[in-house]
Amino acid sequence: MGVTLKLSEDEARKIVEKLNFRHEYDTVIAVLQHYETKDILMVGNMNKEAVFKTLTSGMTHFWSLSRKKLWLKGETSKHFQLVEDFFIDCDEDAVVFLVNPLGPTCHTGNYTCFYRNYRSFIAKH
Amino acid sequence: MGVTLKLSEDEARKIVEKLNFRHEYDTVIAVLQHYETKDILMVGNMNKEAVFKTLTSGMTHFWSLSRKKLWLKGETSKHFQLVEDFFIDCDEDAVVFLVNPLGPTCHTGNYTCFYRNYRSFIAKH
Repeated sequence: MGVTLKLSEDEARKIVEKLNFRHEYDTVIAVLQHYETKDILMVGNMNKEAVFKTLTSGMTHFWSLSRKKLWLKGETSKHFQLVEDFFIDCDEDAVVFLVNPLGPTCHTGNYTCFYRNYRSFIAKH
Repeated sequence: MGVTLKLSEDEARKIVEKLNFRHEYDTVIAVLQHYETKDILMVGNMNKEAVFKTLTSGMTHFWSLSRKKLWLKGETSKHFQLVEDFFIDCDEDAVVFLVNPLGPTCHTGNYTCFYRNYRSFIAKH
């Protein structure tokens, strides 16, 4: 078990100021990767507030494109995702969080949202 | 060394028809992950044509949001990314490609676009 990363408000503000929120609804793309298995668990959008709250609380928050609201991952299920480390890409419009998930990431109950490869995707449709 | 995944036009068309191109410029979010190390190398956007060409050629293609054009990764550098496997997320607006990169992924020459963690990101600014 790792140590949850919680930044100070000053540190979080510095990061938020430097990111390029160029995606829809002024967001960056956030990829969640399991800190031990390195499996990719989920992809979502984060606006400034979501990044700030994620970095200062140590739990991932998102901007929901469909519900148009800020959203704490695990708010209902209590399957919070604890942040272990945080990486920024070259053009600063995408980020990766290494996380320790307290339960399945996907709302379907699967460990990851990417539970289907192309074969099962074609077969099921 | 793995085997490059190349789908038939029929298979690729089935997949493209079922994806939800809900992101900007009618795209899905595509995450590239190294097929052996599982490191996340890059995040980009793919429209229908980019997904189709990626799946039928076995080399990743993107829709460039800044240049507003289709783009074969490695067109200039010859650092193509060979597709090894392909996963789709629960709401079908994000995909993961496991890839075998023929050179550094990042235009900066780094192995991955996510070469900075938050400490170096704060320090450099």
